[in-house]
Amino acid sequence: MSDRLEAQFAFLNEADRLKSVLRATTLVDGSRQENSGEHSWHLALYALVLADQAGPGVDINRVIRMLLIHDLVEIDVGDVPIHSADGAAHASAETITAEAEAADRIFGLLPAEIGRDLRALWEEFEAAATPDAVFAKSLDRVQPVMANLMSGGGTWITYNVTAEQLENRVGVKVSKGAPGLWAWVKARTAAFFPA
Amino acid sequence: MSDRLEAQFAFLNEADRLKSVLRATTLVDGSRQENSGEHSWHLALYALVLADQAGPGVDINRVIRMLLIHDLVEIDVGDVPIHSADGAAHASAETITAEAEAADRIFGLLPAEIGRDLRALWEEFEAAATPDAVFAKSLDRVQPVMANLMSGGGTWITYNVTAEQLENRVGVKVSKGAPGLWAWVKARTAAFFPA
Repeated sequence: MSDRLEAQFAFLNEADRLKSVLRATTLVDGSRQENSGEHSWHLALYALVLADQAGPGVDINRVIRMLLIHDLVEIDVGDVPIHSADGAAHASAETITAEAEAADRIFGLLPAEIGRDLRALWEEFEAAATPDAVFAKSLDRVQPVMANLMSGGGTWITYNVTAEQLENRVGVKVSKGAPGLWAWVKARTAAFFPA
Repeated sequence: MSDRLEAQFAFLNEADRLKSVLRATTLVDGSRQENSGEHSWHLALYALVLADQAGPGVDINRVIRMLLIHDLVEIDVGDVPIHSADGAAHASAETITAEAEAADRIFGLLPAEIGRDLRALWEEFEAAATPDAVFAKSLDRVQPVMANLMSGGGTWITYNVTAEQLENRVGVKVSKGAPGLWAWVKARTAAFFPA
């Protein structure tokens, strides 16, 4: 019992560091950058409230669990923003290796069977091949769009993002898991992307 | 569809403000005060990882949902810290009324049936009369204890909290939903509360 709780709290205390990982996106009021801990909370709330946008076969409780842990590897690797000065962000081979090592370290703090389960859930999210993971990814992509919409354009302005880039980097992925959601959100982005 | 998503995002964008509500407790590294958004994420992760500490009849998926929404009323009312210069914090009648009004306003932004469900879940948490709510309350009380332990005493030092006060304000509630957890954590607080 005692060693088990030691391992559980080693993980929970390490997870606290996600609150200090900053993202490119700001809060809705534009006052400061969002951190990956509060982002994970907001996404879980998205899943809870937008469950009716999920396709058939999606288990919202699993999606919520996935979103709670999806960014933990950023404690070691940092956040890779969708839009950047270099254009579209693609996780490099180095980043993918570093994230796998971070997952080994962070989920490895837990009692073995909990660590194994949560690591498998993280790998499922990354692979984006199951209905749960595809929907979780859609929410992860649409939340920064809403933050940019609310805060006056955010990273779209900073990096001169075009309508085509938004569609390719974001729209395609949101549409995959939540097509109705993207149609609704995309219509609201029009003011920022004049034809 | 369109009006429905309008209401869902009115709520999700309003919820973003919880990231700007500050708590008395700091991050584990002591670098700054924790906000209630990231606190809600951390608690949901506590529920996921400490599920084996829950008593019989507890549904962890419901506990996670409860913890995701439990602090939303603080957007209007702010956080009531456990330890303060005035001693033990007891929510005044005014606070209770203000929180109910906040729940009306915030959950009222949602499509009616989602708002009704989430408000009922929040009321269940507040009443702390079901196994799910009792366990959720235990986690909500134990997480700041761990933050104080990790950051060198935190609000225990600021407000000269005694071992007896910690037991009465925190231990009794954590024990109610997770007695094994409190026994383990309490042993670790001994260094801060010399007999």
